[in-house]
Amino acid sequence: MRAGPSQEEIRRHNLGTLLRHVHLSGPTSRAELAGRMGLNRSTIMALTADLTAAGLVREELPRETGRAGRPSLVVRPESARVYVLAFDVGVDRLVAARVGIGGVILDRRETVRPRGGFEMPEVVAALAGFARQMHRKTRPDTVCVGAAAAICGSVGRTDGVVRFGPNIGFKDAPFGEELSKRLALGLPVTVGNDGNVGAIAEQSRGVGIGCRDLIYLHGDVGIGGGIVVNGQLLGGLAGYGGEVGHMVVNPGGRPCACGSRGCLEAEVGERALMELAGHSTELTGREAVRAVVDAAGRGDVRAQDALHRVGDWLGLGVANLVNIFNPEMVIFGGVLRELYLGAAAQVRSRINTSTLVASREDLRLRISALGDDATVVGAAELAFAQVLADPLEVLSRLA
Amino acid sequence: MRAGPSQEEIRRHNLGTLLRHVHLSGPTSRAELAGRMGLNRSTIMALTADLTAAGLVREELPRETGRAGRPSLVVRPESARVYVLAFDVGVDRLVAARVGIGGVILDRRETVRPRGGFEMPEVVAALAGFARQMHRKTRPDTVCVGAAAAICGSVGRTDGVVRFGPNIGFKDAPFGEELSKRLALGLPVTVGNDGNVGAIAEQSRGVGIGCRDLIYLHGDVGIGGGIVVNGQLLGGLAGYGGEVGHMVVNPGGRPCACGSRGCLEAEVGERALMELAGHSTELTGREAVRAVVDAAGRGDVRAQDALHRVGDWLGLGVANLVNIFNPEMVIFGGVLRELYLGAAAQVRSRINTSTLVASREDLRLRISALGDDATVVGAAELAFAQVLADPLEVLSRLA
Repeated sequence: MRAGPSQEEIRRHNLGTLLRHVHLSGPTSRAELAGRMGLNRSTIMALTADLTAAGLVREELPRETGRAGRPSLVVRPESARVYVLAFDVGVDRLVAARVGIGGVILDRRETVRPRGGFEMPEVVAALAGFARQMHRKTRPDTVCVGAAAAICGSVGRTDGVVRFGPNIGFKDAPFGEELSKRLALGLPVTVGNDGNVGAIAEQSRGVGIGCRDLIYLHGDVGIGGGIVVNGQLLGGLAGYGGEVGHMVVNPGGRPCACGSRGCLEAEVGERALMELAGHSTELTGREAVRAVVDAAGRGDVRAQDALHRVGDWLGLGVANLVNIFNPEMVIFGGVLRELYLGAAAQVRSRINTSTLVASREDLRLRISALGDDATVVGAAELAFAQVLADPLEVLSRLA
Repeated sequence: MRAGPSQEEIRRHNLGTLLRHVHLSGPTSRAELAGRMGLNRSTIMALTADLTAAGLVREELPRETGRAGRPSLVVRPESARVYVLAFDVGVDRLVAARVGIGGVILDRRETVRPRGGFEMPEVVAALAGFARQMHRKTRPDTVCVGAAAAICGSVGRTDGVVRFGPNIGFKDAPFGEELSKRLALGLPVTVGNDGNVGAIAEQSRGVGIGCRDLIYLHGDVGIGGGIVVNGQLLGGLAGYGGEVGHMVVNPGGRPCACGSRGCLEAEVGERALMELAGHSTELTGREAVRAVVDAAGRGDVRAQDALHRVGDWLGLGVANLVNIFNPEMVIFGGVLRELYLGAAAQVRSRINTSTLVASREDLRLRISALGDDATVVGAAELAFAQVLADPLEVLSRLA
């Protein structure tokens, strides 16, 4: 409950707002920006000049508009000089990407991460190696202005420590700090839970654009979640909010890596599906889930039954979330895309029997639009957060 | 993503902010207000003068401070001229209150609402009658500036329609509109779900002051919930968020009034407890629950067992919410106060076995500080919302 902002605060806010528009919407005319921001064109011109000088945007004549009169210049994101590093630590892969303003992936590296192998130092070394390889290929005046990572574990809001990541063997691991040291760019590395980061990605660049209330469910070996409430990611007291994978849907059910029983991720995770389908556990991840969905499609009764049972638990978990959140959209990401596509009838049926009509009436169920890139795209958005909040401050620190 | 505010918007914002400070914190010195709002004393003086002229606050010399120098005048909420009406429609009672700035209950009326009796027109007539009685006792220049009601049913964000209130027999009932007509004050009546409204009350005037992430669980015959995320009440797409009573904790369990089975309110509600304890269902509500808790305390084994079983389901529901929200506080209100006090060990034990350590480590479990008044106090806060957002606009409309 503070008083109103100063003129300088307003200018910084406006610079960040303009850059955010262009970053998220792509090339936008000055006239459009003036309309969206409620400012006159001369103010937009001055703001754009500052951002252009900082190498964050550039102005261009638009393509033929077909309208009479002088066309309004178009402001575009400029990705030649400034970029962020985005990382994704999944159960079976490591990804690093160099991402420019506007969210364009300029370069990327990926490697398979053997299950049960790779302690934190090896993960950090591999990611930092990728970053160096990618930076070596840039122009000499190119600068990295942010870095962030998605990881399949519980992460606090501020410290980059992975408190609990049973599927990758991390416990109280100071991952952000170690990666920051190894990158040696003088930048902190923001770390986010894969579900949370995927939610940010789908909301800013995926199927959830424009949704203020959405739930993103990310299936890897376990199930992570990211929940957007009134436009903001739900973090809770310390940033651990969104751990929907450990909601108990089946009291006394399958044991979970967290020590409890019947958690959503124990009943719906890859292992439950493989066991129920009688599939070998040699195949893992997306391929394993897809093999069950394919087998069910070909008429394999055991695979069909496995999908139905897992789909029923998934539906119950989603139904609970619908009653609690009255969301506009639930998005199935990671391996849950394949699972949902194979068991949509069960999921919908459970939602219909176990939610209040009012809570579900405008609900949309969707699969992730960004697919396997959701986590790394979301990590890039985390890495851009500081630049978008105060573009010139960030650049002046680097100059 | 709009541009910064105009000077007039800033003034209105500051008037609302100052009034909100005084409304929530009580008498506050000008110096303290200046510090909290980041404004100088002359601006505070001007704002206070406007609010004083409108009859919303008054200034006084403080009591002896013991410090040297000229004391800073104290700004107090003024409740003589302006008030709001707050209503509560519970399963077995109806409450109406006249509430002044500062949240002081100036007058109240209450009646027993026979279960199964009272259709909406009778409820509306009873509440409007109470309002007239109370207004008749005020000074001639006293004005009502807002009205709101809490009700045990699902309510949309904007229209005051009770979509579903099975425990009071309301379905798609235009309660807000009807009550507004019957009051004939030219004011809309904001309607909120009892759990949501109770959460607002506990956060603004109860045990949750200062908490930005809390969950309020309200037990009546069913269980309502109100969830505060990052300082804001969770509404969801259409305002139906927070229906935690219909989270399924026991798939295939007891039938629920909503049509599903094993909902939290079916397993924990008053009926389940009475049946498990073998108590007659003649006693209802708080008295009935208290009778079971008392019997358990006197060593009645069946009552103890009933409390343990119900406490276990309550704990499971809370555990799920803790994983999902990482809240700072969970508050037990309505009859859940008695239930929690009688089964705290089961509740805590379930939370310990079924939540991630990180999600629960700074969790506080508390009982409602406002007790039976939580809903009506919260309704008053809803009714004040418009006045606090723009104090002078509201008063100019009435002038």
